[in-house]
Amino acid sequence: MSPTRRELALALGYTFGDETLLTRALTHRSRGSVNYERLEFLGDSVLNFLVADLLYDRFTTLPEGDLTRWRASLVRQETLAAVARAIQLGDYLELGSGELKSGGFDRDSILADALEAVLGAIYKEAGMDMARAVVLKLFTDALAAIQPGSLQKDPKTRLQEHLQRHSQPIPTYDVVSIGGEAHAQHFVVACRVILLPEAIHGEGNSRRGAEQAAAARVCELLRCDSNG
Amino acid sequence: MSPTRRELALALGYTFGDETLLTRALTHRSRGSVNYERLEFLGDSVLNFLVADLLYDRFTTLPEGDLTRWRASLVRQETLAAVARAIQLGDYLELGSGELKSGGFDRDSILADALEAVLGAIYKEAGMDMARAVVLKLFTDALAAIQPGSLQKDPKTRLQEHLQRHSQPIPTYDVVSIGGEAHAQHFVVACRVILLPEAIHGEGNSRRGAEQAAAARVCELLRCDSNG
Repeated sequence: MSPTRRELALALGYTFGDETLLTRALTHRSRGSVNYERLEFLGDSVLNFLVADLLYDRFTTLPEGDLTRWRASLVRQETLAAVARAIQLGDYLELGSGELKSGGFDRDSILADALEAVLGAIYKEAGMDMARAVVLKLFTDALAAIQPGSLQKDPKTRLQEHLQRHSQPIPTYDVVSIGGEAHAQHFVVACRVILLPEAIHGEGNSRRGAEQAAAARVCELLRCDSNG
Repeated sequence: MSPTRRELALALGYTFGDETLLTRALTHRSRGSVNYERLEFLGDSVLNFLVADLLYDRFTTLPEGDLTRWRASLVRQETLAAVARAIQLGDYLELGSGELKSGGFDRDSILADALEAVLGAIYKEAGMDMARAVVLKLFTDALAAIQPGSLQKDPKTRLQEHLQRHSQPIPTYDVVSIGGEAHAQHFVVACRVILLPEAIHGEGNSRRGAEQAAAARVCELLRCDSNG
């Protein structure tokens, strides 16, 4: 039995008055021209603002760079998709037949976009305070995990800073191959640094992900995390 | 005679109760560790949200891609710096001696950041509705200039789409030279496409700007704007 919207309302802590607004927030463009894209545009900015405001208030001594990094970690696709899965948002999505067959209901990008659209719809119907309450509820675990100073910079940043400390040229990243179908591409990237004789490869579902994976391996080899 | 904060209050349509909050929003990091950077982080997200919300409400049939482009054009550095100049925000900035000498009070990046910080401070002191009122006042002209359908895509996007329509490989961009001092760099970028025998150069104050300038020239040569 597929879950009812009553369960979604419980998970969100919010019951929509306008069912068609919620339907729009859950409808992928593969299903029709009335879909969640405009609400996603709005919800993205609502979520960005609410997370920025929360971080600003909670971490009163954190410098701007750390606030920016924490926000990025909270609103990135992987985090949003995990939050969406926790409330089983995929079960409520309205997808076209192609997306249905290819498993769109469990794809990170669609889950993240639909979550933003739902937040945009809540803001539109009930205002910012309600949107804030829902974000606080949904992101409780993610927010609790924040420990100032503990968020590592991403591998590419760590690698670049390490090389700069040692007056080395910046690394280069080249795409070696792109495989898989359009909705599930697989990238292999080669990272080269002067300190290593061979290129180090990384793999991922995006060019950026493959670059980060390659940089992470180079960081291990060069022990970027040790000081100096 | 330098203008008083009373004049700034008139220009903003808002008078700060807490003068030290306003001072912080106007203080560049070159002046000290208590500066506008955290408020800028917050104000950036406030402005992004308010502009998104405005566009969403005003242009009810505009697709998400157009909303995103209009928002980008409204919140980009050049637009923010122009708004900041219109209220003479540079006259109120607190800069370190190095920035003072090098003309920081009229630099786009500092003016844009300080404007965001002031908006963040207004939100913190008086809430979102007041921040919205100030944004509506400051961005009246910029908002009035919006005509759906009139915003051209940027040159790099137009070039890429033109090449894709003609089944050509995407263009490459390479930095040919970087000159000027750290706060006033000058970039030259070479853009290469298979359809043209030589690289076309573009110049600008940023790598992105130089790439766009080069792409604009290539677009002219290839007549990207004509259909087909």
